[in-house]
Amino acid sequence: MQTFGELSPPARLILTPGPSSLDSRVLRALGTPIVGHMDPWFIEMIGEVQAMLRQVFQTENRVTLPLSASGSGGIETAVVNALEPGEEAIVCVNGTFSERMAIVASRMYGVTIHRVEAPLGRTVDPDDVRRAAKGRKIKFVGVCQGETSTGVVTKLDGFRKVADEIGALLIVDAVASLAGVPLDVDRQRIDVCFSGSQKAISAPPGMAPITVGQNFEQMLRDRKTPVQSWYFDLKMVMDFWGKDRAYHHTPPISLIFGMREALRILCEEGLENSWHRHRQNQLALIAGIEALGLEPFVPDPEDRLPTVTSVRIPEGKGDGRIRMQLLEEFGIEIAGGIGPLKGKIWRIGLMGHTSQAKYVLMFLAAFEKVLLDHEIHFTPGAGVGAAERVYAESAAVEHRK
Amino acid sequence: MQTFGELSPPARLILTPGPSSLDSRVLRALGTPIVGHMDPWFIEMIGEVQAMLRQVFQTENRVTLPLSASGSGGIETAVVNALEPGEEAIVCVNGTFSERMAIVASRMYGVTIHRVEAPLGRTVDPDDVRRAAKGRKIKFVGVCQGETSTGVVTKLDGFRKVADEIGALLIVDAVASLAGVPLDVDRQRIDVCFSGSQKAISAPPGMAPITVGQNFEQMLRDRKTPVQSWYFDLKMVMDFWGKDRAYHHTPPISLIFGMREALRILCEEGLENSWHRHRQNQLALIAGIEALGLEPFVPDPEDRLPTVTSVRIPEGKGDGRIRMQLLEEFGIEIAGGIGPLKGKIWRIGLMGHTSQAKYVLMFLAAFEKVLLDHEIHFTPGAGVGAAERVYAESAAVEHRK
Repeated sequence: MQTFGELSPPARLILTPGPSSLDSRVLRALGTPIVGHMDPWFIEMIGEVQAMLRQVFQTENRVTLPLSASGSGGIETAVVNALEPGEEAIVCVNGTFSERMAIVASRMYGVTIHRVEAPLGRTVDPDDVRRAAKGRKIKFVGVCQGETSTGVVTKLDGFRKVADEIGALLIVDAVASLAGVPLDVDRQRIDVCFSGSQKAISAPPGMAPITVGQNFEQMLRDRKTPVQSWYFDLKMVMDFWGKDRAYHHTPPISLIFGMREALRILCEEGLENSWHRHRQNQLALIAGIEALGLEPFVPDPEDRLPTVTSVRIPEGKGDGRIRMQLLEEFGIEIAGGIGPLKGKIWRIGLMGHTSQAKYVLMFLAAFEKVLLDHEIHFTPGAGVGAAERVYAESAAVEHRK
Repeated sequence: MQTFGELSPPARLILTPGPSSLDSRVLRALGTPIVGHMDPWFIEMIGEVQAMLRQVFQTENRVTLPLSASGSGGIETAVVNALEPGEEAIVCVNGTFSERMAIVASRMYGVTIHRVEAPLGRTVDPDDVRRAAKGRKIKFVGVCQGETSTGVVTKLDGFRKVADEIGALLIVDAVASLAGVPLDVDRQRIDVCFSGSQKAISAPPGMAPITVGQNFEQMLRDRKTPVQSWYFDLKMVMDFWGKDRAYHHTPPISLIFGMREALRILCEEGLENSWHRHRQNQLALIAGIEALGLEPFVPDPEDRLPTVTSVRIPEGKGDGRIRMQLLEEFGIEIAGGIGPLKGKIWRIGLMGHTSQAKYVLMFLAAFEKVLLDHEIHFTPGAGVGAAERVYAESAAVEHRK
């Protein structure tokens, strides 16, 4: 039989909007010899993972667990459990990932999905949701807190208010925001919130943490039709992750080991410290980017997602060639735009483990070199210098405290 | 925030029907620093994984890839892509996992699923499928090659013949059989075949290899309605795994590293050697079990699945206490029965890495000790002795060749 050589990936610093490069502790956990998923030790250990996830979501929700799927599987789980044939929902769309919720839900039999849109780089206006709901019975309002395709963060409280007024559930996609942006599931009364393992939690890709409130749980019990998906049926998934620990499907044991370690690192740091770190490093990155004469894609600084920074590509400059040189010469991966923004923006992720001052400075140094090679002009060192000044100022502020 | 201690799982020999204990090479691959899923290196590497999967499935099918889900996700993928509202299918049911295909498919809107059943421990008769199809338009016949809940292996050729007669597709669940039991997707003209990463391939749990033939691909193109699941939509999954390598969802990169290494080990051994090894070790295990006065649950030796051996629990003996002692005293995990067989059988997995003579002998030695402690009587050493004789005879046979 044909075989292939040793696994030998190139060393990379992954500064994309996920996955993020992993801490060596997480890698070590991933490579730990496994136990069976019905082993008493495993059954107890997953309770620790759930306890840490509850802290990160800031919730006491019983139903809090990592789904055995990517963040997109989290989207599918949220909507197929929420909707029954004949029902309607509103999804706020301001980019590819918020639109994904509308697309996934629209595939379900007999449901009607209303899209409320905002231009790319902006947030949806809760008043538009109120208008779209007029005269309709809306089951849920879906909002994406961190729109990865544009680098926009959405404030959630206005949507909770509208959802209350129209008697709808609130579903929040926190794939790119959880642990990087303030989020408090219980205080903000979010009915379903899900994320992705490989973003600001910095666990390996392949799981989607999700948490579900009591109203949603009651709604699940009151459903008249079965959830269309067996794999994503939350009541059955909870047979395993709930007190029964009854077999549903075999979970990805090694990924749970990795997630446990990533959550330990996050809990050691503290959630507020993590939010602060993500914001600080983004400010330094943006200062550096602007000092190179580049323009952030998101016009309002308030709307900029701390975990993903989008930057307009200067007119006539080759997106692919610049990213390829960064990868080949420096081993640094950033992302391009997707959908209508393909070729128009770069997206730089500073998520979890990669949101560190040293990586911001290393990236800017490499980026300067590559941009200069492509005849984008600025004072050499300007980007790194601007970022260093942000760090110096923030250190001074911390010092004065 | 509350944190927990170091990840420190107990050392286990996992002899369940999946997951199996992993080779140290696979563990090392799992802990390898990751690259992004759009990295040119990754894009090329996954082609190697696909090439090795094609060899293991014995197919030239273009659509051959590991799904980002457990084996149960493989079931869901097969049926939701195959069926549209108004269509009918036949599922052969002779245990929990074959029944799962019927249950998953029955959740779909507007489809009719006919079950053709066999008693537990037996195989379904293809003639019964022929009778059930009479007067109906059947889209597919679903068969489980290795029924993990009972330890039964089903011969596939009779079902292909019936499917041809009635103009139906053939879907084969090879979750517990692929790489452990002869299977030739192209020669046997299987339209869809899926497996689980954590069984006889001995990769970490969390992925479901699947392969799809040209007739099924054509059927996908001819569908009148969208596949109800976005996550499991094969056409979209193939956007990433096909020649476009276009982003669909973020795959579990570390698990793909682990699977690549597991496939390398399998390809180095050779598929026929792997089948032979699984059969030999099962024969030794059964000889040992019978020498202890225990009875295999599957009456016909021809029907016994080489990867999972089921054994009747002697009347009045505590299933749980015996398994717990094996786990605590020897670190060996075997499984109990599930569904109607709970408390009635033990299931011993010899899958991939764990199908080794040394593990068979270690298990029998430990099992003897525990059974004697529970006052199940036999000549001490009888089980180990009987297994050793099987190995000695087979070595003599090999030697004479």
